[in-house]
Amino acid sequence: MTELAAISDFIRELDKLKAVKRQVRIPEDGDRQENSAEHSWHVALMATSLSRFAGDDVDIARVVQMILIHDLVEIDAGDMFAFASDAHHDEQEAREQAAADRIFGLLPSPLNTELRQMWQEFEDAETPDARFAKAMDRVLPVFQNMKANGGSWARHGISRSQILKRNAYLELSAPALWHYVIEQTDIAVARGYLKDA
Amino acid sequence: MTELAAISDFIRELDKLKAVKRQVRIPEDGDRQENSAEHSWHVALMATSLSRFAGDDVDIARVVQMILIHDLVEIDAGDMFAFASDAHHDEQEAREQAAADRIFGLLPSPLNTELRQMWQEFEDAETPDARFAKAMDRVLPVFQNMKANGGSWARHGISRSQILKRNAYLELSAPALWHYVIEQTDIAVARGYLKDA
Repeated sequence: MTELAAISDFIRELDKLKAVKRQVRIPEDGDRQENSAEHSWHVALMATSLSRFAGDDVDIARVVQMILIHDLVEIDAGDMFAFASDAHHDEQEAREQAAADRIFGLLPSPLNTELRQMWQEFEDAETPDARFAKAMDRVLPVFQNMKANGGSWARHGISRSQILKRNAYLELSAPALWHYVIEQTDIAVARGYLKDA
Repeated sequence: MTELAAISDFIRELDKLKAVKRQVRIPEDGDRQENSAEHSWHVALMATSLSRFAGDDVDIARVVQMILIHDLVEIDAGDMFAFASDAHHDEQEAREQAAADRIFGLLPSPLNTELRQMWQEFEDAETPDARFAKAMDRVLPVFQNMKANGGSWARHGISRSQILKRNAYLELSAPALWHYVIEQTDIAVARGYLKDA
């Protein structure tokens, strides 16, 4: 039962991700900020819905697991806006590594190591599973901002080239989705949601 | 690309689940009500953390997929408190069937049918996967309410027998967890979180 007590601590810790706020807003709920827990759910379910666009070398069950844990480090490190400066990115990485040690460390062995490694795999984005998972995380705001009249893109003056660079994982990972994103960014520029640069 | 446009509509529809409020509260975020999207994430990640307590006949990847979609019908039908009357349960079931037709119907074939059937499998709770998924959904508030000084149990005057009945799927599905829940309800009665009945 010691093992179960440890997992219980982890399960309770997860509530904290529901308090981590992102830049995306939820028009359906009074335009409040999205939190990272509901975001993780959304990305995970999107990944299963889009699984037929993934390559044959992608294991969707692993992708989903990776997505479910990908933002846990934000419990300690907070969410960083996707288009923050490079200096902020370096600081954030150090905070996230420490957070991963603490949070996955709540779990009993070998689950602690398995999930810690899976989180690192997502961060490194060098395997087919991690690339598809990261591509999913990055493409969801495209759907959301297109629906919300530009949403966080418009508020922060983001340009088309920034979105295409950020979604470049799709080009190899899911080519049909990559073409869809290119089309969507063209529409976004025409509507003034994204800067033409 | 018609297929992708349909999936895109489904992905955007999912934002609405973030506005469906449950009885559980989030002390970490100003004691606001939990929503069904972040709840679904929590249950899914809990299921993977507790997978070693599931029987060998349980496919955790299917369980996770089932959990990710299990509350989607609440977009139209709303969340019903677990301990509502039987009459409310019957009305709710009719609303949820209609909601499932509409929401999964947004997706292209065969994904629409696959997910609609998987949701029904969860509801029926007759397969090992569905029983474990349902057991996970029902046990999470045990962890949450024990941490929150009784939480929604204390607010609504719930009794130990109601919790044990509600978590009975665990007895066959994950016996070690069932024993844990019995222990927790004993503690809850001693602390006055649950009525001794």
